[in-house]
Amino acid sequence: MNKIEHDERIDYLPNEKLKIIQSSDVFSFSMDAFFLAKFCYVPIQKGKIVDLCTGNGVIPLLLSERSKAEITGVEIQDRLYDMAVRSAQLNERQEQLQFIKDDIKKVVVNLGKGKFDVVTCNPPYFKTVTEKEWNENKHFAIARHEIYCNLDDVVRISSELVKQKGKVALVHRPERLIDIILMMKKYSIEPKRIQFIHPKKQKEANILLIEGIKAGNPGVKILEPLIVYNEDNTYTEEFKEVYYS
Amino acid sequence: MNKIEHDERIDYLPNEKLKIIQSSDVFSFSMDAFFLAKFCYVPIQKGKIVDLCTGNGVIPLLLSERSKAEITGVEIQDRLYDMAVRSAQLNERQEQLQFIKDDIKKVVVNLGKGKFDVVTCNPPYFKTVTEKEWNENKHFAIARHEIYCNLDDVVRISSELVKQKGKVALVHRPERLIDIILMMKKYSIEPKRIQFIHPKKQKEANILLIEGIKAGNPGVKILEPLIVYNEDNTYTEEFKEVYYS
Repeated sequence: MNKIEHDERIDYLPNEKLKIIQSSDVFSFSMDAFFLAKFCYVPIQKGKIVDLCTGNGVIPLLLSERSKAEITGVEIQDRLYDMAVRSAQLNERQEQLQFIKDDIKKVVVNLGKGKFDVVTCNPPYFKTVTEKEWNENKHFAIARHEIYCNLDDVVRISSELVKQKGKVALVHRPERLIDIILMMKKYSIEPKRIQFIHPKKQKEANILLIEGIKAGNPGVKILEPLIVYNEDNTYTEEFKEVYYS
Repeated sequence: MNKIEHDERIDYLPNEKLKIIQSSDVFSFSMDAFFLAKFCYVPIQKGKIVDLCTGNGVIPLLLSERSKAEITGVEIQDRLYDMAVRSAQLNERQEQLQFIKDDIKKVVVNLGKGKFDVVTCNPPYFKTVTEKEWNENKHFAIARHEIYCNLDDVVRISSELVKQKGKVALVHRPERLIDIILMMKKYSIEPKRIQFIHPKKQKEANILLIEGIKAGNPGVKILEPLIVYNEDNTYTEEFKEVYYS
C-alpha cells in the first residue's frame, strides 16, 4: 500500500493540503487540469462526478476539496491508473474517489447513461502524433495526442454520461474553441460558461475553460479573464487566489 | 449642403480629427461600433470595404483613417443614411465613402457577389421588440432589434459580399457567441480572431468582437482582453490607446 516506484515522487499540491504521486518519466499534472478543477461547477453535498482521461487523478483529488459527491476517475493507462489509486489512498480519500482503468469509449456500459451531475475532462490536445513522439515516451504520447480518443469521443461520451441539465466541463486550447462548440451542439451540450487564461495581460489566451449544460437553454457567459503573470513575471493576485486555494 | 437638422449636433470623434453628425432623438454611435472599427483588419492602400447597418456612418468614417480602400456603408433608414452622407461631406471624405440607402437583403444585387475584401457590421442585437419600444422611437427600435434583418441575414449577406479569403468582422453581445459561430460556419466564414471587452477586470465580457475568413482554415485566436475601466472608474491605459487613437 502506497508503495512508490523508483521513478516516482510525492508532491504537495499548491494549497499544501493534498499529496499526489507523480513521475517525470510518466506523468505530472499540468496547470490546465488545475484550472479546470477550480473552474467547474460541483454539487457541494451529494451527487456523482466523473473525470475522464484522469491521468494521475489530480482533478478528482482537487474536486474532493470542493465537494462531498462520489467522484469517479477513468484512465486508460495502467501506470497512471495505479498512481491515481495510490494518491487517493495517500490522502485517505479512497472512500470518495474511485478509479476505473478503461477506455472511455467502453465506460458508458459500466457507468450507465445519464447518471452523473458533472463530467470533467482534460483530454489529449493534439490531433496527430509523430513516430518519434510515440517511440520516445508512449505515456506522454497517449496523454497528449488523440490516439485512444479524440474530441468527438470526449464530448459524445460526456454527453452520454451526464444527466439532463447536468454539466460538462472541459479544458482545451483556445485554437479549438470552434470545434468544441460544434461538438457540444452536436451532442446536445449547450455552452454556458467560458473562461480564458492569458499568460500575461497583453497576450493571447493559451488555455480555454468551457462548461455546458445537457439540453440547456442558449446564452453563454464569458467570465473575467484570468491573467497568470504580472509584467515583472510574478504571479498576479487573481492567479494566486485560484492556485493556492 | 451640410445642413444640420434642428435635433442634430456635430460631435468630434474621440481622436478629435473627425466630425460626425448625431442626434439624441434618432441615432448616436455606440462604443461597440467604435471598438469594431479599431479591431477589424483593413487593407491599407487599396481594396473594397462594405459596412452593413452603418447607421450614421461612424464605422466607415473611422475606417477611412486606417485605409485608403473604397468604403461603402449600407443603411435602411432615410434619416440615418442622410446623416452619414452629410458626415462624409463634413470631413471631406465623400470621394472615399459612399452610402447606399437600402435593405441589406437587397444590396447584393447592386454590389455584386464576392467583390469585397472586408465586410463589417454592428447589427441589431435584440431578437424581439416590444410594442412600447416600437411606438416610442422607431429609429432606435430598428437599429437595436432584429426587425429588418436578423443575425442569419447579416452573416449570410456578409458571406455573399466578401471575396474568397476576405474578412467578415462583427460586433455583438457575448451571449450570442455560440449563435454567431454556428452562423459563420453555416455560411463558410471560419472564425479566426476573437476579442472580448470587459467593463472591469473582474467582470464578465459585455462586448464581443469576432472576425472570420471566407473559406478560411480552422483555428481561432483569442486576443488579449480589453478592459475599459480601472477599479477607480478611470479609463485603463489600453482603452485610452484604442479610444483616442
